[in-house]
Amino acid sequence: MTALTPVIGIVGAGQLARMTVQAAISLSVPVRVLAARPDDGAALVWPHVEIGSPDSLEALRHFAAGCDILTFDHELVDPEHLRALEGEGRCLRPSAAAQRYAQDKGYQRERFATLGLPVPQHRLVRDAADITSFAAEHGWPVVAKATRGGYDGRGVWLLDGSLAARELAERCADSGVSLLAERFLPIEMELAVLLARRPGGECAVYPVVQTVQADGICHEVIAPAPVDAEVAAEAERLALAVAEATGVTGILAVELFLAEGHLWLNEIATRPHNSGHFSIEGAATSQFQNHLRAVLDWPLGTTTLTAPAVAMANVLGNPAGTDLAATLPAALTVPGVRVHLYGKEPRPGRKIGHVTALGAEVEETRARALRAATILAGKEPA
Amino acid sequence: MTALTPVIGIVGAGQLARMTVQAAISLSVPVRVLAARPDDGAALVWPHVEIGSPDSLEALRHFAAGCDILTFDHELVDPEHLRALEGEGRCLRPSAAAQRYAQDKGYQRERFATLGLPVPQHRLVRDAADITSFAAEHGWPVVAKATRGGYDGRGVWLLDGSLAARELAERCADSGVSLLAERFLPIEMELAVLLARRPGGECAVYPVVQTVQADGICHEVIAPAPVDAEVAAEAERLALAVAEATGVTGILAVELFLAEGHLWLNEIATRPHNSGHFSIEGAATSQFQNHLRAVLDWPLGTTTLTAPAVAMANVLGNPAGTDLAATLPAALTVPGVRVHLYGKEPRPGRKIGHVTALGAEVEETRARALRAATILAGKEPA
Repeated sequence: MTALTPVIGIVGAGQLARMTVQAAISLSVPVRVLAARPDDGAALVWPHVEIGSPDSLEALRHFAAGCDILTFDHELVDPEHLRALEGEGRCLRPSAAAQRYAQDKGYQRERFATLGLPVPQHRLVRDAADITSFAAEHGWPVVAKATRGGYDGRGVWLLDGSLAARELAERCADSGVSLLAERFLPIEMELAVLLARRPGGECAVYPVVQTVQADGICHEVIAPAPVDAEVAAEAERLALAVAEATGVTGILAVELFLAEGHLWLNEIATRPHNSGHFSIEGAATSQFQNHLRAVLDWPLGTTTLTAPAVAMANVLGNPAGTDLAATLPAALTVPGVRVHLYGKEPRPGRKIGHVTALGAEVEETRARALRAATILAGKEPA
Repeated sequence: MTALTPVIGIVGAGQLARMTVQAAISLSVPVRVLAARPDDGAALVWPHVEIGSPDSLEALRHFAAGCDILTFDHELVDPEHLRALEGEGRCLRPSAAAQRYAQDKGYQRERFATLGLPVPQHRLVRDAADITSFAAEHGWPVVAKATRGGYDGRGVWLLDGSLAARELAERCADSGVSLLAERFLPIEMELAVLLARRPGGECAVYPVVQTVQADGICHEVIAPAPVDAEVAAEAERLALAVAEATGVTGILAVELFLAEGHLWLNEIATRPHNSGHFSIEGAATSQFQNHLRAVLDWPLGTTTLTAPAVAMANVLGNPAGTDLAATLPAALTVPGVRVHLYGKEPRPGRKIGHVTALGAEVEETRARALRAATILAGKEPA
């Protein structure tokens, strides 16, 4: 069948690619991976790897020549390169146009606002005076975001006044970073909706989840989110609107704020996403398998939960050091937890794995996932 | 962590090794595979592969030199080679002594009978006269089994009289096959119990399952088996007794007959087994992950089912030909099924994959698994 099923090329070889190739084994889907380094997470566990920089158009071209469809582990490939590949007839799923929504926050905010989607009040700002003028209208604090390249809390700043605005604006001017100012929202809860979308527009939407963040990094995901049916339905409606607006193929993750009594669009990702890792065991079809199915334009898989409560906890490298060879067997003593390690050096604060638990009741389930993640990170004895 | 976690070497690269390396990704366990051919199922999806024949002691020695623990995809390695490797200080899990129970049915029957375990009446036979004499005591038909090398119905014959006995005895004498004669049992149901056992003897037992066979090949597995609690408890007791008797490390599969009102030991496998494939999604810990954990002497994972009913159906190559690139997308339209393909050429009758379904009720769940497996095999349109 490898002769007939299209060859999928994944640009980037981090944990998302690693979990995607793991899913590809079950369906015997031919996958190739472009890895920047031979010790990238996916390159450690997959035989069909090409080493090359995703920043190099030549490397991308060489890789694309051996693939039928290109898909992506991250949103960091230069938009010009993406457009060049499409211009040369390569099939990108998601397309360069869809990825632009995840790559350029200024573009995304303007487009979504035009479409009437609920984005926080925002403005592209060039200097401290712009930020202060924005604050005069919307009040301090102001949220400032790099329009490109930020993730896991990097590229987002909370500015409490004009002094902080000046410091940030100067740093950004020096490093060529463009800024978006946004009104600060008193967030009651953070939610995420994951969906898979086929090229023709058919979507399979996962149940809305709650994400628990600290310092801009996702620590926990709880499925289903503890919100009422109207909020869940509205979250799903917004995710479908974003899918339609972006024309994404594959997995789309839409992060939402619940604030001031309604939902606001926060960030989006046009690829498998941390908020969907629960789906490996917690949904009938994992986001990784559904990404492959969507990208291949195959029928999408059922997205229902496999248990009344599903909890995912990220494992972050411990500042005091994490020795996974010692902590893993200890973490496996926690009943019924599913451990996923990414093959990464456990540097402090780095996402090195996650743990999923399934259960009948949310707090007990969450406690097991957190306990195993804490033991894994080396933050407490077994 | 790869420096500290022992390197597991899997001898053989079929679908069991393929699903074991898939499980190894999640725990970031370092695994190497000895494949007879580069297109073996596991070799297609794993980068750490050595090509060599499991029949060659030199190849086994070379492979073992790069591993800390050897484990096995099948029971076909020459027992002399296994003992030689152990004599040279290699760590085999399961040991040569444990594997002998799966490799030599005559030895297994004698040992289990001595221990008082319920095996069918049997006798090692050298010629047709021995078989006829056995039949005079226990009646026709007689079940004849090759003491070594049989699986999936190969190496098992049902003899209805002395003519058939003579024909078989002559063929076996010509090819050097040793035979075991067994009393024919009027089988009411076939069951299997899977367990994982650590080197120190700690076991985690999976719920007893029903296996549905045709022509000696497993077609379906239903978990839990539709038997009363006493039968289930007795099945578990027998599996634990076999585990203790063999001293197995890793997964043990014990196949049982329910006949004449009680349980009889049929076959055993000292490795992950077809009757345990349901556990990938149908149990809290898959047999493949628990095999790795047992072999590493790590805490074993929870074995409870993840749904009230779990059904697994094997996908066998269709005599009229199977084009998986066409049938796979069609099979994926069946709601909620989990498809596993093994990367094998779909020759007629060959196990090329399996499908698992989870549900609230056994017949509906079984119907979905069977329907997807039938579509996959190319035996009916979607």
